[in-house]
Amino acid sequence: MTQTIPPLALTMGEPAGIGPEITIAAWRAVRAAGPAFCVIADPALLRGAPLAVIAAPEEAARAFPDALPVLPLALAAPAEPGRLDPANAPAVIASIERAVGLALDGRAGGVVTNPIQKSVLTAAGFPHPGHTEFLGELAGGGRKPVMMLACPGLRVVPVTVHCALRDAVARLTMAAILEHGLTVAAALRRDFGIAAPRLVVAGLNPHAGEDGTMGREDIEVVAPAVAALRAAGIAARGPLPADTLFTPRARAGYDCALCMYHDQALIPVKTLDMDGGVNVTLGLDIVRTSPDHGTALDIAGTGRADPGSLIAALRMAAEMARARARKDHPA
Amino acid sequence: MTQTIPPLALTMGEPAGIGPEITIAAWRAVRAAGPAFCVIADPALLRGAPLAVIAAPEEAARAFPDALPVLPLALAAPAEPGRLDPANAPAVIASIERAVGLALDGRAGGVVTNPIQKSVLTAAGFPHPGHTEFLGELAGGGRKPVMMLACPGLRVVPVTVHCALRDAVARLTMAAILEHGLTVAAALRRDFGIAAPRLVVAGLNPHAGEDGTMGREDIEVVAPAVAALRAAGIAARGPLPADTLFTPRARAGYDCALCMYHDQALIPVKTLDMDGGVNVTLGLDIVRTSPDHGTALDIAGTGRADPGSLIAALRMAAEMARARARKDHPA
Repeated sequence: MTQTIPPLALTMGEPAGIGPEITIAAWRAVRAAGPAFCVIADPALLRGAPLAVIAAPEEAARAFPDALPVLPLALAAPAEPGRLDPANAPAVIASIERAVGLALDGRAGGVVTNPIQKSVLTAAGFPHPGHTEFLGELAGGGRKPVMMLACPGLRVVPVTVHCALRDAVARLTMAAILEHGLTVAAALRRDFGIAAPRLVVAGLNPHAGEDGTMGREDIEVVAPAVAALRAAGIAARGPLPADTLFTPRARAGYDCALCMYHDQALIPVKTLDMDGGVNVTLGLDIVRTSPDHGTALDIAGTGRADPGSLIAALRMAAEMARARARKDHPA
Repeated sequence: MTQTIPPLALTMGEPAGIGPEITIAAWRAVRAAGPAFCVIADPALLRGAPLAVIAAPEEAARAFPDALPVLPLALAAPAEPGRLDPANAPAVIASIERAVGLALDGRAGGVVTNPIQKSVLTAAGFPHPGHTEFLGELAGGGRKPVMMLACPGLRVVPVTVHCALRDAVARLTMAAILEHGLTVAAALRRDFGIAAPRLVVAGLNPHAGEDGTMGREDIEVVAPAVAALRAAGIAARGPLPADTLFTPRARAGYDCALCMYHDQALIPVKTLDMDGGVNVTLGLDIVRTSPDHGTALDIAGTGRADPGSLIAALRMAAEMARARARKDHPA
């Protein structure tokens, strides 16, 4: 039985990027079957679709089949595709804050974020390295937020993310792998309805180090983390050779792969490229997903942007919200 | 027009592994349409197929549709699936030497190698780290042999291979990337019939280092190597972010991706897992391919082994041999 959830809150994202056009395209794609959402944005950005300018998210569901529901939030300056304007940074940030507030209050089922342009926000004084850290501050659940990438049939989590590969190797710790594994296992239970999540942990080195002949980290860092996850009652296996961890057969055997560095996690998801990958933030008090691409300023306004990843992000957020609702209010 | 080539020479590989059964299965799969091959092995290993024990590869093509052609090479001890026996190591090595000799003499179109068990050969005094190095010694073409992995729609070459990731980062040099690129471009022309090969070079760091903010190697090591390849007249692009380098759209834009380390190259090929990947050795005087898997001792003799990768290796070797023949004797 499908659990009823409040509408999702979609943020404006960078107004000069592809966010406005993929928002309209995503609404057209899901207006009939849902999930219902409202976008927190300047209505002037959303020409090309019938709009329902609403005052509260509670009005979104009824309007949704016929018009794109918009919670209005005015930009300081008119937006032009491809032209960044720091004057609009406060509105971009306010859209995120408002969406998170609605989700924390239970008035939105979750937050889906359109891509932002970090450089503009940084120039305007935004102190966070990105969306995820900002959301961790607004809605941190006691754990550090964890980035998961998901596509049909594959979920991956990088334990180290945006740092040089040299530093990823040097900084990898048992504690980080363990903490990521605990957050992932909890999220798979709460947000994905998987009662006994099966984790695999990729080795850092080729062939997971082949018994220490190609690097000691898999023995000294990764294996103890896997043992600690198992001691915590989590069905974790590893370290496993990363090259054979993403074959179709291997993928069928686990719910999420913990990867040791950025490309080890992102290469398999993007190689498969099924229906657009989704970026999910685990460990927050709210549900949050986003499309797995940037603002694409170079094609903004041309109508060439593919809304597939945003649509997948909306659907995944709705599934996660329903899984949380089932857990909080079992039938 | 299909160029006529001599039969391929298939080595015995580890007699206790899956080599014998995938050899028979591959012969059944290609007996009608080719490519014709002869296996250099003990006929006692090949029960389960009609055999044509031949004295010279020239007899293989005629026999091929009706029987598996075998150039006999006796084992010292009877082989039992799953049970390694160092007594048989000399025959395993002799099979490789004989196959290479036939290819160097132009009596075999190329060499396809069944998987070997390195530990047994090492115990028997084999001084090479693996097949590729041994073949480099037997048939080296003046360059260091280079390993390429190929599946339909994707070819990748790792510049560093079997070493700890920490060492791969530390040891990556402009010279190694350049040398690999030159060997790859020459092989794509000679063996794959690609007149103007398009290479892409993956960045070492996430997002190819994002202008040096995540590691300097992409600026200081990879970019100069790409510039040197271009100066040598090769259509090379890079360093490019590795995570978006293997999407279906990106794959269509190049003939081979040079990768900086083992898993960066092997993850995308094995994630796709189309028809079995093939391991190709570039830069030799002969054509050489092999299936992209090991001896699988645990399932040897059960009939469960998949011959797909060996079949793909045979077909690719034949294509490469025809490309070389066309180049040497244009119509």
